[in-house]
Amino acid sequence: MTAGPLALTLGDPAGIGPEIVVKAWRALRNQGPPFFVVGDARALASAPASGSTPIRAISAPAEAEIAFRDGLPVLDLPLRSPVVAGQPNPSAAQAIIQWIETAVGLALSRTVSGVVTAPISKAPLYEAGFKFPGHTEFLGELTAATRYDGARGPVMMLTAGGLRATLVTVHEPLARVADKLSIEAIVNAGLVTAQALRRDFGVGSPRVAVAGLNPHAGESGTIGREEIDIVDPAVRALKDLGVDARGPYPADTLFHAEARQTYDGVVCLYHDQALIPVKMLDFWGGVNVTLGLPIVRTSPDHGTAFDIAGRGIARADSLIAAIRMAADIARRRP
Amino acid sequence: MTAGPLALTLGDPAGIGPEIVVKAWRALRNQGPPFFVVGDARALASAPASGSTPIRAISAPAEAEIAFRDGLPVLDLPLRSPVVAGQPNPSAAQAIIQWIETAVGLALSRTVSGVVTAPISKAPLYEAGFKFPGHTEFLGELTAATRYDGARGPVMMLTAGGLRATLVTVHEPLARVADKLSIEAIVNAGLVTAQALRRDFGVGSPRVAVAGLNPHAGESGTIGREEIDIVDPAVRALKDLGVDARGPYPADTLFHAEARQTYDGVVCLYHDQALIPVKMLDFWGGVNVTLGLPIVRTSPDHGTAFDIAGRGIARADSLIAAIRMAADIARRRP
Repeated sequence: MTAGPLALTLGDPAGIGPEIVVKAWRALRNQGPPFFVVGDARALASAPASGSTPIRAISAPAEAEIAFRDGLPVLDLPLRSPVVAGQPNPSAAQAIIQWIETAVGLALSRTVSGVVTAPISKAPLYEAGFKFPGHTEFLGELTAATRYDGARGPVMMLTAGGLRATLVTVHEPLARVADKLSIEAIVNAGLVTAQALRRDFGVGSPRVAVAGLNPHAGESGTIGREEIDIVDPAVRALKDLGVDARGPYPADTLFHAEARQTYDGVVCLYHDQALIPVKMLDFWGGVNVTLGLPIVRTSPDHGTAFDIAGRGIARADSLIAAIRMAADIARRRP
Repeated sequence: MTAGPLALTLGDPAGIGPEIVVKAWRALRNQGPPFFVVGDARALASAPASGSTPIRAISAPAEAEIAFRDGLPVLDLPLRSPVVAGQPNPSAAQAIIQWIETAVGLALSRTVSGVVTAPISKAPLYEAGFKFPGHTEFLGELTAATRYDGARGPVMMLTAGGLRATLVTVHEPLARVADKLSIEAIVNAGLVTAQALRRDFGVGSPRVAVAGLNPHAGESGTIGREEIDIVDPAVRALKDLGVDARGPYPADTLFHAEARQTYDGVVCLYHDQALIPVKMLDFWGGVNVTLGLPIVRTSPDHGTAFDIAGRGIARADSLIAAIRMAADIARRRP
């Protein structure tokens, strides 16, 4: 078990981050798990509906667990200028990145038990020179130098309603997905998935299903050859490596209730193959988990939602589920 | 309203067709809608669990409605050689094709109110020279010379649990989907969908959603440009043509219960984008409807299932739903 509170990065302060963080604290203040924010205290104090929420500046993570019951603990790393809800500003980029780096550093030193990240938006970060497709790849880079036993990620998993789906490709145009697939990429995703199911989710003998790419999983090569040339060899290699892998299955036969009973995790080949089922099973409460890193990291499965920021109507379901899942995983990790 | 019984083609007699046809008659014999089989009487008589089902040979469709209550009516167009369950045989191809042509001819002459097709398998038909990707395209060809007012199909719609999803591409390898898309193809699918919702499904003012192709519907062009170059112009063209079209939407936000309340039909760009939600909503009872033809045609949304043919365990849910839907549509057609 990894001890300590969770570090929750504020994400883009012009999005719904501050609002859902305050709402998550209210929902969890009595039962926990305890967390503290790495972010800007002023942005939290001015979040919608935060009026009655005491913000408690802390100087070290160790203070968070005590402070948590009386207020929302914040390791205050202030923005250079005040934030306007709904208006992302590249001037905030440096602080947003610093919050993530700080939280990851605290997790690598085992000062915190895990990291939960509120959403960021790529455009304002890119203007400030950020060069990663998203949190997941940035976390891979920040943790790359740290030793880690086992199959290495980052591999993105989406969970909702008992479904655990990992992705071989993430934010690729659909037309490029086939070119991005390789036996190696699928094997690595399968290994990381099986390892995470065992270690992070407590599944004793994980069964890993692998989806096909084409309609009817290619129908013996008549509707595309990727199943024959790439996915099937990857499944066989996974079996040789001791993983209870099965597939490739037609994607449309994998996600109804009966099918979901036949595996503990499913490796999906592209974004919407996983995200359509995940969002159908739980549109508001899905969680994104980064597998195969030396730190625990979860996040909500939605974005910054600038269009509704500052209005008080954002739902914190997904963030609350992400905080709980991070604590569950940390408890199981050695 | 189109009068007359429904014509039900037997499909590949080595598959589960004969078994599910017998089961559908048992389920519907009392309440209807009445139908007769266009196929081989002997194959029906030897179907699993058909022992107690009287097979009634008829010489004309007009006899079917009376015969239906006492037995399963068959317009007998016999196979040249007996069928072995689970063993598709190219020698059956000519009869299988003749059954479909006969049923379509009866529908075009308004002798029957619609056609329901049990599953066929492509491989044995191809060996006999059949050259269509499936039923849908063959029906398009057979009905092409007949006059038809309105936007013309065939366009494939899958329905399940209140979801009605039409497809712009069907059995294409995923890597080729983007190349197969065009503004014209999406506009035509949208027009046929709106027309069918009005005429075939009784929706007064149909709202038609259109899915995007890429993750997050391309995120303003950063994850693929098809939304900007093809899908968005198609949605605008549909609006100009008087269709209440909206989109393109990220596909993962389109299929949860709340989203499904916002449209009456959804145009999907590739097979699994529609089939994953359809099969999640109702794995056993989905129906395939061919839109934009001068005849009514539905079918179950599953295949021949040679692997379980002859064992008596096939489920007729989807065929029964297809028969009911064909009758509902025929009742609404002028």
